[in-house]
Amino acid sequence: MLDFAVTATGAGPARCGKLRLSHATIQTPAFMPCASQAVVRACPPHLVAEQGIEVMICNAYHLWQRPGSELVAQLGGLHRMMNWSGALMTDSGGFQAFSIAGNSGISEDGFTFRSHLTGEMLELSPERSVRLQNELGSDVAMVLDECVVYPAEEEYVAESVERTARWAQRCRQAHANCDQALFGIVQGGVYPHLRARSAQATVEIGFDGYAIGGLSVGESKAEMLEALAAAVPELPADAPRYVMGVGTPLDLVACVRLGVDVFDCVLPTRNARHGSLMTTQGPLKITRQEYRTDTEPVDAQCDCPTCRNYSRAYLHHLYRCGDAAAWQLGSLHNLRFYADLMVRLREAIVRDELDRLEASLSPWSARDMDGYEEGGDAQR
Amino acid sequence: MLDFAVTATGAGPARCGKLRLSHATIQTPAFMPCASQAVVRACPPHLVAEQGIEVMICNAYHLWQRPGSELVAQLGGLHRMMNWSGALMTDSGGFQAFSIAGNSGISEDGFTFRSHLTGEMLELSPERSVRLQNELGSDVAMVLDECVVYPAEEEYVAESVERTARWAQRCRQAHANCDQALFGIVQGGVYPHLRARSAQATVEIGFDGYAIGGLSVGESKAEMLEALAAAVPELPADAPRYVMGVGTPLDLVACVRLGVDVFDCVLPTRNARHGSLMTTQGPLKITRQEYRTDTEPVDAQCDCPTCRNYSRAYLHHLYRCGDAAAWQLGSLHNLRFYADLMVRLREAIVRDELDRLEASLSPWSARDMDGYEEGGDAQR
Repeated sequence: MLDFAVTATGAGPARCGKLRLSHATIQTPAFMPCASQAVVRACPPHLVAEQGIEVMICNAYHLWQRPGSELVAQLGGLHRMMNWSGALMTDSGGFQAFSIAGNSGISEDGFTFRSHLTGEMLELSPERSVRLQNELGSDVAMVLDECVVYPAEEEYVAESVERTARWAQRCRQAHANCDQALFGIVQGGVYPHLRARSAQATVEIGFDGYAIGGLSVGESKAEMLEALAAAVPELPADAPRYVMGVGTPLDLVACVRLGVDVFDCVLPTRNARHGSLMTTQGPLKITRQEYRTDTEPVDAQCDCPTCRNYSRAYLHHLYRCGDAAAWQLGSLHNLRFYADLMVRLREAIVRDELDRLEASLSPWSARDMDGYEEGGDAQR
Repeated sequence: MLDFAVTATGAGPARCGKLRLSHATIQTPAFMPCASQAVVRACPPHLVAEQGIEVMICNAYHLWQRPGSELVAQLGGLHRMMNWSGALMTDSGGFQAFSIAGNSGISEDGFTFRSHLTGEMLELSPERSVRLQNELGSDVAMVLDECVVYPAEEEYVAESVERTARWAQRCRQAHANCDQALFGIVQGGVYPHLRARSAQATVEIGFDGYAIGGLSVGESKAEMLEALAAAVPELPADAPRYVMGVGTPLDLVACVRLGVDVFDCVLPTRNARHGSLMTTQGPLKITRQEYRTDTEPVDAQCDCPTCRNYSRAYLHHLYRCGDAAAWQLGSLHNLRFYADLMVRLREAIVRDELDRLEASLSPWSARDMDGYEEGGDAQR
């Protein structure tokens, strides 16, 4: 079940849309925080919803390991378990199989690896990943793919792209849940022709939507945008496009300009836990000594509960104490910043003002600004 | 600034009151959660207020160490720093000087000990404790006292009681803040005649209210109540009485029967972090396997955000993940349980139904029930 309608376009491929899914309709461009274990770390779902977040992404690997996909199914699926009335996507778990687990191996059949919780040897095939996500009951499932490390030889990436296409075909065949959409994933590293090839192969199989994965894993921003620009034109205009693991505020603008509709990234929540708070003036490293006596809110223009209630000085104190309240207050603030950013992006598309929006985000252009950390598909 | 009016009495010394303080008026019997570092662990103040909590207790030692009492004063005091519109008490820091810090010593002048944060040698005298609490700007400051360990020889306790009285006198003299009330503290261990003596000496000095400290530190419940029963009749009827570090739901009923008005204890919040949730049916150890599949709320009769939004199964999962959201959801629930308990206590006093209330709390009578942990003055 998926219905996607482009509701507005601006200059170039940028567009606004409505994405109707089984449990909720969301507006695009949309940003999904990572709720890998069915919770945005330190943030109960009802508080996430209050920040204007309409969709989250959970992780099939993590939930397979704990509490188990059968249990989630028995509890009525992720939405009921989490009491979340918004939309939910699930990632396939392939990235975790590859990155978290030791002794991992990849073959035509899938991944073989050790559970990070039990040490047990596990196998994750395309069919099993689809079944897991079916049991979890997300609105959108992702195919099992190989997220190739950066840098990688062109020859390896070319082979990997073909295998990912064969896996995508198997996922398509295994998927039999009319309440759940299935997205294919375009890979191809930093090689534009492999990105195009991967996109064509994925579209040929046919999915409800298309993700572009394997970005923001260490390549330059120019390489990332080049890879993206090679893939997007191969994707059907009437299907949603999702860039995985991206990214910074300016990354989002750049991707939206290329016609991307959906994003996920650990950046706002992970940075928040490390004390990097997002403001219209750029990142604010709250643990810095200068905020010890600062009675202003984090961002005077923000109406999140953190900014409505607390000063920088109090937050500085809570972070210094290492109290979990700080992680939550920081995370909710950063999620509100992203939710607001998506609203501004949608307005800018309608009004053809993406240049102006991008200019207003110039405090975010210095990627090495203090307290700023990269977050990308490497953190899926 | 303190105005205390007994508004209702039942059978025996039990009573309801209104305690007007500088920043807020609270109803008694009242329960204070511990916000030692100016935050109830994992719970931002606005969420604590939403549970019906009217007063919290902060700790002069912790806040002296971080962020510093001068800084708190510069920020306008604890209430402004925390954006807390309820009442606040502060503990003197003596207990922490004695228990947390290594190399501690006690002399007529006060405590000498090492900071647990910096390793620096510190001295905490009665005068300094009062000055610290003045700077923090709490509604009620506590005198510096010696909380004697259990068991302790009668001779030592007798000497300690006299020193605590001399310190109380010095605190009284050092205190010059008409916006802040000052409470004396009755000590005396498990020796009823020393409890009476300590109460008399403290009353002779004269304070806005009277605390009974050094309870729930390992003595039996019978010893605790006997010590309390020896002290309370020596205290003026028109001043509030505060038992420090107590306690369980049934402890609260027992103390209220003896005429106690105010309590603090780490029990609801510390137990919550360890997965012990409080219900009308007794403690519920949420990490137990039986709750893995349980779609009921923690307590169907509770309207806290945790019970309104989430199932036992989801909470079980969050606790198993070790996510900070679990600590907050558990803590807020337990605080609501205590806030509700105080409402029920006040109603029971008015209606002379303390026996019935006590009977309804019988699921709490097995002190060694699974998941139940003691919390007392030992955890101040």
